[in-house]
Amino acid sequence: MTVLILTCEQDVTADLVVARLNRTGVPVVRLDPADLPGGVALSGEYVHGAFRGHLSAGGRLVGMSGLRSIWLRRPGIPASRVAEPSGWLTEESSQALYGMLRATGARWMNDPDAARRARHKPWQLRHAQQVGLPVPATLITTFPQAARDFAERFPDLVVKPVSGTHPQEPARTVPTSRVAPGTDFAAVAFGPTLLQRRIAKTADIRLTAVGDRLLAARKLVHPDAHPDEVDVRYAASDAPWQPVDVPARTATAVHAYLRDAGLAYGAFDFAEDADGIWWFLECNQSGQFGFVEMDTDQPIAQTVADWLTHREPERQTRRDDRLRATP
Amino acid sequence: MTVLILTCEQDVTADLVVARLNRTGVPVVRLDPADLPGGVALSGEYVHGAFRGHLSAGGRLVGMSGLRSIWLRRPGIPASRVAEPSGWLTEESSQALYGMLRATGARWMNDPDAARRARHKPWQLRHAQQVGLPVPATLITTFPQAARDFAERFPDLVVKPVSGTHPQEPARTVPTSRVAPGTDFAAVAFGPTLLQRRIAKTADIRLTAVGDRLLAARKLVHPDAHPDEVDVRYAASDAPWQPVDVPARTATAVHAYLRDAGLAYGAFDFAEDADGIWWFLECNQSGQFGFVEMDTDQPIAQTVADWLTHREPERQTRRDDRLRATP
Repeated sequence: MTVLILTCEQDVTADLVVARLNRTGVPVVRLDPADLPGGVALSGEYVHGAFRGHLSAGGRLVGMSGLRSIWLRRPGIPASRVAEPSGWLTEESSQALYGMLRATGARWMNDPDAARRARHKPWQLRHAQQVGLPVPATLITTFPQAARDFAERFPDLVVKPVSGTHPQEPARTVPTSRVAPGTDFAAVAFGPTLLQRRIAKTADIRLTAVGDRLLAARKLVHPDAHPDEVDVRYAASDAPWQPVDVPARTATAVHAYLRDAGLAYGAFDFAEDADGIWWFLECNQSGQFGFVEMDTDQPIAQTVADWLTHREPERQTRRDDRLRATP
Repeated sequence: MTVLILTCEQDVTADLVVARLNRTGVPVVRLDPADLPGGVALSGEYVHGAFRGHLSAGGRLVGMSGLRSIWLRRPGIPASRVAEPSGWLTEESSQALYGMLRATGARWMNDPDAARRARHKPWQLRHAQQVGLPVPATLITTFPQAARDFAERFPDLVVKPVSGTHPQEPARTVPTSRVAPGTDFAAVAFGPTLLQRRIAKTADIRLTAVGDRLLAARKLVHPDAHPDEVDVRYAASDAPWQPVDVPARTATAVHAYLRDAGLAYGAFDFAEDADGIWWFLECNQSGQFGFVEMDTDQPIAQTVADWLTHREPERQTRRDDRLRATP
């Protein structure tokens, strides 16, 4: 049983996991959908009520029924490396590859359709509320008057993008920043704007969830930090990430978040306040983990490798059950 | 409780359904996401563990908690009608609108994430096999040798696109056509190719499934029709579509197809052979139905209106249960 990893060549985080998989002797096929057709080839046959599919990459051929798990990391755009790329060929290649892989029954980290839903921050915030995570008061609006009313009720606000970082490379990040007092909100009519009550945070929390395993790290906010330094990604800080225990209530809620979202992996960002409350900011279903592992020595890559390797029979669900609904 | 219809202005099929909804006095809000921001505005507030969202279009304001159902018909691309369109604004607007709507708990025709999976023809073919529908022998491949072997086993083949018709306007259709004997398959290496055993069909079947209701129609193939006339969309035929009963086994399988796919609507295409077998060709989760209704007088628009109107408490599932999985 083979682990399939879909990612680009430059993905050093995937390298870490592949090294660990190699050590345990688990067969791994790593490929970039950008190389289909070309370096990557596929074939699937539907005959007499059965399906038999194969993938070939780097001279290796693997049967799709022999896939134990699929790690959807940072895949390139299908057919983007052919001599004459086109939208049509990309769509044909994407449908062929992801259509067949969706039909295999292999476990996904993460299921592509569940992942798509989980990328919507307005959905994340509601989902977090529903599983019982504390969510800072938030408004997403194109109504200037709604923004003004909200700013009256919650005068200390930050503004951030609705869509967060785009999952594809190159990533497009827009820093979260503080809203100046007396801001005129007329411009929100020209684009949905996300306003959120600023948490006076004492630390940033990154909780990496891999299946049932939760690995959390805390980065203390410098006591002299200017309150305008909101976004940990841009803050000048020499504090390292340090391992931290996950409060039991948070653990329960995070497990529910992943289960109900159909996700196997999630990188949760929280802001910890002076009372020790972890305020949910977002869950990036394809968030990086290398920087945390580097600081904390937490075995995240190993945990990912373990998840990709192991069958978890008692919790195993047929792929088709996941999206099942009563129409 | 309001029905929300997301579609473009030119959508005459939606007009038919709106007319029927208006007759029964059910409140309807119809909008095109292309008009957000601008003619369409939205606002959603997350405070104290609760979510309150609103949509405004054409001077009407509707609360998102008051949505009874959402019909995702032929929506335009969000933010495509602003003065200065950009990929970023489209993504922000799309995430704001669809992220909030995903969080409402309203019933979808069709759920956007289930719909995305269901558009993959390689997945459709496998899914049809799994629910017990007869599927013609099919190969999807980039291996020329696999294509040659398949053509030896099944000499009478058609070729069609892997991705089918693109769901967006303008639709891109590529006709299904017959593979000439002795075809050289070297070119399949340059793009995934779908080869399928040609069914010697006596009729085309269009089965429109709306919730639990199945409405099928048959269009006889002209006895003198040339066997190269494979694609009903392009065939010169004066035979009208006529209502036909759905065989019990097909009905059971189609219900299972929709349920397991999480779909409320599907337009199934079958080829009927001389033995009366309905061979599954595809299920278009956003397929048109106006042309069938015109010929057959089957009440498809009314059935869609009924589905959008009615609550079906015994089969109602919380939105979150649909994508639930054990990670």
